[in-house]
Amino acid sequence: MARIVLLLKPGGCGGMSEGFVVGLVERIAAREDGVLLFSLTPPRSSTSPEEAQRIADLTLARLEVLDLDGLVLYDIDDESDRNPAQRPFPYLPTMDPAAFLDEHLGRWRRPVVVYRCVGKYDEASMEEWLARQDPAGVLGVFVGASSRDKQRALELATAQKLRAEVNPALQLGGVAIPERHSRTGTEHQRMVAKQQVGVSFFVTQVVYDVSAAKSMLSDYFYACADAGLAPVPVIFTLSVCGSMKTVEFLEWLGVDVPRWLRNDLSHAQDPLAVSFDQCLSAAEELAAFARRIGTPHGFNVESVSNRRREIEASVELAARLSR
Amino acid sequence: MARIVLLLKPGGCGGMSEGFVVGLVERIAAREDGVLLFSLTPPRSSTSPEEAQRIADLTLARLEVLDLDGLVLYDIDDESDRNPAQRPFPYLPTMDPAAFLDEHLGRWRRPVVVYRCVGKYDEASMEEWLARQDPAGVLGVFVGASSRDKQRALELATAQKLRAEVNPALQLGGVAIPERHSRTGTEHQRMVAKQQVGVSFFVTQVVYDVSAAKSMLSDYFYACADAGLAPVPVIFTLSVCGSMKTVEFLEWLGVDVPRWLRNDLSHAQDPLAVSFDQCLSAAEELAAFARRIGTPHGFNVESVSNRRREIEASVELAARLSR
Repeated sequence: MARIVLLLKPGGCGGMSEGFVVGLVERIAAREDGVLLFSLTPPRSSTSPEEAQRIADLTLARLEVLDLDGLVLYDIDDESDRNPAQRPFPYLPTMDPAAFLDEHLGRWRRPVVVYRCVGKYDEASMEEWLARQDPAGVLGVFVGASSRDKQRALELATAQKLRAEVNPALQLGGVAIPERHSRTGTEHQRMVAKQQVGVSFFVTQVVYDVSAAKSMLSDYFYACADAGLAPVPVIFTLSVCGSMKTVEFLEWLGVDVPRWLRNDLSHAQDPLAVSFDQCLSAAEELAAFARRIGTPHGFNVESVSNRRREIEASVELAARLSR
Repeated sequence: MARIVLLLKPGGCGGMSEGFVVGLVERIAAREDGVLLFSLTPPRSSTSPEEAQRIADLTLARLEVLDLDGLVLYDIDDESDRNPAQRPFPYLPTMDPAAFLDEHLGRWRRPVVVYRCVGKYDEASMEEWLARQDPAGVLGVFVGASSRDKQRALELATAQKLRAEVNPALQLGGVAIPERHSRTGTEHQRMVAKQQVGVSFFVTQVVYDVSAAKSMLSDYFYACADAGLAPVPVIFTLSVCGSMKTVEFLEWLGVDVPRWLRNDLSHAQDPLAVSFDQCLSAAEELAAFARRIGTPHGFNVESVSNRRREIEASVELAARLSR
């Protein structure tokens, strides 16, 4: 382990803590309300370094007008084992988010939440990555396998243990899925269990079913009270959609879109405008509810499609949410 | 049939059309928005006529301050065959709503929607009741058996046929259940089918799951468009609850109470105040949604318990909704 711990000494980490606009880590540690994140999917693995840099620069230029607390970088895995239905957009391997951050997002001076589908990495590479991260600027979210049968190089519990050994100051987030709560009624127990092994914030799956998200939050709040824990920030992910193809993709990913909203979108002349308004009203309802019951919350804006209008609407949504 | 039709001649019907504040029938026929009803459960069958009159007078005195379009009189059936779980309040047979209306509600000068659990009545008594009703002042809602195996004296289809033959001007409402839509996704098809056999308005089961009610309404709206029908008024039933026992009774009746709301109620110092606010915000959301998609709507306030505070809060809710 020593070889790796050395890298954590001052001056290591490629200078990542210098010049950072800190805040996210402190806000999460203080369980503050109102954290705002914006999430990106790294470019496809087949993208050339020059093209990846062009995409990164374009994205950062779009985002620099926003007062974000941080970026989220997703780690995309082939989840076709989870859902036998045909994927509306084909699965194409994407760059490792950690590599995309290291190699192309040097200009970004704020914290980054890096997702890691732990089953994709072996123990040595995970350990090496953990050791290199500056906990002032990087936070992690470990994602377990998409199904029980999936082949994996590393188990979630092993990854959590590694982080506790190698870089215990690195803040770890957990994934929270309101739809799983609708099905099983036990997502709040999973959240409490994750918190007990060190998770200090949650990021939800994209929320279209606001009532389900409120139910999960409420059950989590009361489960924390029962366990003698203070609730940690729950960051709700919102995503606009500009076409039924995007709606179908969200559904394929496991997002419940209430029938009335699906009908609204499918009959709208401008579904993007309808979903934009819906995201704003969902944010308002979720924020009011979280404040009322006393659970810290925040928002994460995700663009699930690559279409320009949807990306621009996502940036606009984040701008509206930061007000 | 002639014997019965005779009773419909002017001057028949016990003078029911004289002095009526009409409006409900016309508003429903015109598919107007904003109908407001208040629903009552008749006293227990074992109640003496004097006590039943005292209850009726007390109730009408409470309601006369309200600008209601009409009353709803429920017909309570033993539904223990539908739900094997223990009923939170014991089932006690109640007076026939038609008899309660005839014998005790003479002072009430506005229209009344009379529910009829059709399986409880034989063909002759149903025919006789249908023939006696003045369609300017009485509307009917036929309720089918609570389960397939239930013994019944009359089938729903027979009752519908009788009404078409005996008193075709009598407006007939149908029951609409958002929870059934959540389970099967086909309640809108049932609604369209009921409309095609003559139903001119719907009254929902008590709504606590607003998103489910919106989904049912939305699917109904688009199913009407597909069938070339204009949607008829959908009257949403709202009910306050002042204790978890009432919540459990609502759940026993088949009402879905979202987890977050159930938690709110069970942890509230004053659940009645919480549910009152929730009913108002549900009404606002449902009305805005119905107006936006273009489906006529109204409200029905029901008090599911006999407790004085809950009844008074129901009257106050109706007063707020009529503004």
